[in-house]
Order: sequence, then structure tokens, then C-alpha cells
Amino acid sequence: MKKTCGSILFITAAVFLLAIQASAQQSLAEKLGYAADAKLLIIHADDIGLAQSVNDASSSAFASGGITSGSIMVPCPWFIDFAEHYKSHPHLDVGIHITLTSEWDYYKFGGVLPSTEIPSLLDENGYFYPTTQEVGQHADPVEAEKEIIAQIERAIAYGIKPTHLDTHMGSVLAKPELVEIYMKLGKEYGIPVFAPRMMLMGMPAEEREMIKEDYVLVDRIFMLNDIGPDASWEEEYGKMIEKISPGLNVMIVHLAYDNAEMQALAINHPAFGATWREKDLKYVQSQNFHDLLKENEIQLVTWKEIGALN
Amino acid sequence: MKKTCGSILFITAAVFLLAIQASAQQSLAEKLGYAADAKLLIIHADDIGLAQSVNDASSSAFASGGITSGSIMVPCPWFIDFAEHYKSHPHLDVGIHITLTSEWDYYKFGGVLPSTEIPSLLDENGYFYPTTQEVGQHADPVEAEKEIIAQIERAIAYGIKPTHLDTHMGSVLAKPELVEIYMKLGKEYGIPVFAPRMMLMGMPAEEREMIKEDYVLVDRIFMLNDIGPDASWEEEYGKMIEKISPGLNVMIVHLAYDNAEMQALAINHPAFGATWREKDLKYVQSQNFHDLLKENEIQLVTWKEIGALN
Repeated sequence: MKKTCGSILFITAAVFLLAIQASAQQSLAEKLGYAADAKLLIIHADDIGLAQSVNDASSSAFASGGITSGSIMVPCPWFIDFAEHYKSHPHLDVGIHITLTSEWDYYKFGGVLPSTEIPSLLDENGYFYPTTQEVGQHADPVEAEKEIIAQIERAIAYGIKPTHLDTHMGSVLAKPELVEIYMKLGKEYGIPVFAPRMMLMGMPAEEREMIKEDYVLVDRIFMLNDIGPDASWEEEYGKMIEKISPGLNVMIVHLAYDNAEMQALAINHPAFGATWREKDLKYVQSQNFHDLLKENEIQLVTWKEIGALN
Repeated sequence: MKKTCGSILFITAAVFLLAIQASAQQSLAEKLGYAADAKLLIIHADDIGLAQSVNDASSSAFASGGITSGSIMVPCPWFIDFAEHYKSHPHLDVGIHITLTSEWDYYKFGGVLPSTEIPSLLDENGYFYPTTQEVGQHADPVEAEKEIIAQIERAIAYGIKPTHLDTHMGSVLAKPELVEIYMKLGKEYGIPVFAPRMMLMGMPAEEREMIKEDYVLVDRIFMLNDIGPDASWEEEYGKMIEKISPGLNVMIVHLAYDNAEMQALAINHPAFGATWREKDLKYVQSQNFHDLLKENEIQLVTWKEIGALN
């Protein structure tokens, strides 16, 4: 059993917190027009804007129904390219993938704000730190808040209407002060905020209770993790799909084509690398995946639909 | 005749100014060990660092002898990737392609310095202006100097030993104050500076004479320009090669692969676009090109060799 779960980041009892009032009477599924015990699933592509390869793959997966939702990394080189694509596809369910880390070896990015305004977020070369742990160690919450707002505002300035907030590599969950900013901004912008239950951990019991009352908890996150590109995607995703249960589930995927750009970008990263990401793309676009979702009576939903309940 | 020349940027009497003492006794060719009337040629790839596709194509052309020299755009997303390649290829003749413009529609970059330190170089989104003309209109020379130094210093910090300075889209030639900074920095870093004779135009006669005495003038620049990707590269370069004459000649090429990244980056730019750049790459790597150079008794030289005369 441990082996089965080891290759999947299967956060049981993980939660999404949604900026909508919880109702004791109606489940989220019912509010969306489904049976109370419906299995809801968002198929979510991370990292849009990171590379041309990622944009191209994500656009293709949106067009074919392989994903329902995605989120964009505003400080990255290919952000504007996707914003331009969005202009002619404004129905797409796109959120802000709040970015405070720069994890690739030879392809780096810093913030949207001038480096002098956010020194605590940047390394000596002006790029974000590579790990979430370093964000936790160094980030000044005031600077982080300014940078996060600048990322949201830049997306809006380029025409994107974000449907939700989420966080690249979980960096916004690096410490309680950042979690508070993140949730507050979700409320201020009136859009759902994505975060696992661990963000509640650092909070006083009272505050935790208030959040549980104030937000809709979402139930399970699924994501391939800790597997190399040689693993069987059919098998790994097959195991995940069996675990999708009533409530709100989110499957996070990482899409790209296995081309020269992505290979060079992800050098030394077999996990989440070029081959790996093209396997994710092919899987979400496969008939087999969609047949399995149907057989398991899984209902696809979007962040936009959920946000509209507010 | 006009038609023949129209498609080629053939700057007769154009010059390169080199930060080495001119000698009345010996021509540059003689100093480099060639006959006094030798036809010297640098084959120079611009825009390294702009994209993965450009880095890959330029590395390939360096490896096969298709180019002798190139220069790197330090503020661009793929700068670090090339700096890493350079670590294992430190013999490469690489200069700084000083970058003050960001000309692509949906793929933008700003400076190395924080935007608050160089506001006169940036548009309202914090990116460089798209044209050299706008650099001339807006750039504060003090800010431009700081940014240029930061680009050179960042390249050095990442291990590159620049062999020369040149300028993306001629932006450093946008006005006399910038030209002065550019030449001064070449002297300060002890490396040759690349610039056409027009940079002398805005200077008082005395200063112009001093420059002529103080720098080695280089004679001709060749570059494909104003032609679409359907033109015959054989024919265009054939005409150029016939015009290479005794003295120092520089042929500027723009290399990339015609792949998804380059196509998306250069959307709406057929000239200097993906197909165009792969034709440049194929041409410099062709046997025919190198046969023509040999037939015309053209000697390939590098900026590094020229700088070493200093």
C-alpha cells in the first residue's frame, strides 16, 4: 500500500478554501447542480507562461478538453504570449499561479516589481530563490504581498480575468504570514483560493474554525510526484482516478511538449522535465483517461463555476 | 544596381572602431600576420541568449566553424543557459550585445537593473522600448551607462570574458551621448567596440579626428536586411561575398532553428523570424559558403585576435 501511494501526492483530507459562504444545507456539488454525493473534479494545468512549450501544450489541452483549468506564472518570459492567446479565448478558466520561486538551473526569473522593492524575495543575482524553504526563511511578508498584488495586477492589465489564485511550488504556504496574505487577497479579488489543509496548521484554533466556516473546504488533491519519466502514466493515473471520491477533487498536471526548449529548460530535472510533461499532456488528451472519468462517474468542473457561486 | 544593393545592408565606408592604437606603418591585416591587402572577415552571430533556439543554433555554428564570433543579450531569458555552455567552451569569441530594445510583440524583456533605477529606458510595463528611435528619444545617458555596465558585469559574473562590445539594433548609436559612453566603456574594459561610421557624425571634427587616430577603423559591414524568408540566401550572400574587399569586414548573421519557440517568439516578423534565421544558420554551415570564402581568398578572424593586439 505504501508503495502504491508513494508515487502519488495523495493528500487525503487536503482542502481547497473557497471564498464563498459555506452552507450547512447544500453541498458544493448541489450548488453546482449535481447530486449531493457527486465526485467533482478540476483538471488543472500549472505553470502556464513558463515556456513556449508549456503555453502551446496548455492551449492544446484546453482546446481538446484535456484540462478544465490552469494558472499562469506572470513573472515568466512567456506570460505575454499566453495573455495574447487569452484575448481570443476569454472563456478559458485561468488563475494566477503566484510565483515566488525560480527552480530551474539555467533559466531564471525574478519578480514583477523592481528588485530594490523586494530584496527579501531575491537571491544575489536578482532571481527568486529556487526552493519554497528559502522563501519561508527569507521572505518579508510586506514585500511578498506587494509582489503578489503586482503579479495579479499585471495579469489583469494584460486582459486576463483570473478565476482563482494558486501558488507555484506551494511557496505562498511557506509560512503563516504569507498564507494570511494569500487568503486575504482571494477575498479582496473575490476569487477562490487554492491551498491544502496544512495552511491551517500554523493558525490559532479560533482562526482555523473561522476559516472553516468562511470558506468551502475542498477534499482531495492528486498530482504525479516522485516518479521518473519512465513510469507508466496509465497505471499511476489509473490508481488516482480510483481514489476520486464525492466532494471536490483537483488533479494538478504539468504540460509541455518534449522539445528542444523544454529539454534545455528542464535539464537535470527528469521529474517535471520535458519527457515527463509530454506524457502528462498525452495522458490528459487520451480517450482512455476520459473513458475512465466517465466510468467512474466523475463530473468535471471549473474554478470559474465555483467562483460564480459567490 | 540599386535593386542589387537594396536587399543588402551594404554600408560602404562603414567602420568599426577598435580600441587599439592605429599604426601608420602596419595595416591590421599585417599585425594579424596576413598580407597588407588581405580580406579579413568576422562572421558574427547576434542575439545569443534571446531564446533557446538561438543558443542552440549559435552553439552549433560555433562548433562547426560556421561563425567566428557572436555576442550575447544579457537581459534575455536564455542568457544563463549560454553562460553555462560557455563554461565548457571558454575559447568561444563572445562579446556583449548591449541590449536597450525589446522588439518582439509578445516576448519582452527589461534591464538587468531594477526598473526604478532606469525609468528612462523602459515603457510603462517595465520593458525596453521596441525601437532604437525611442531609445534616442527617452534614454537618460546616466541611466543608460549604469545599465550597460550592469550588463557587462553580469556577463563577467557568470564567467564570460567578453571579447568585444556591440549593440542590439544599433540602440547605443541612437544619440551622441550614448556613443561616447559606449566607446569609453570599450576602452575601460580594454576590448574592441563595434560601431559604424555614423557614430562619428554627431561629433565635433576634432574629436572625430582623434577617434580616427585612436581606434582602428574597420571597413565594411554586411548583413541580410529587408528581404523575406523566401529570398535566395545563396544569391544574397553570393553578392555580399563578391563585395568583401581588403581590410576588416564583418558579416552579421542571425541564427536560430525554425521551431515552435522561435516561431511563437517572432510571430508577425517574417524578416529575422524563425524560417529566416534557420536559413541563415544553414547558409553559414554550408560547404558552398566556405568554398566561396576560400575562392575569394577571404581570411576568417575573430574579435579576440584583434583585441589581443592591444
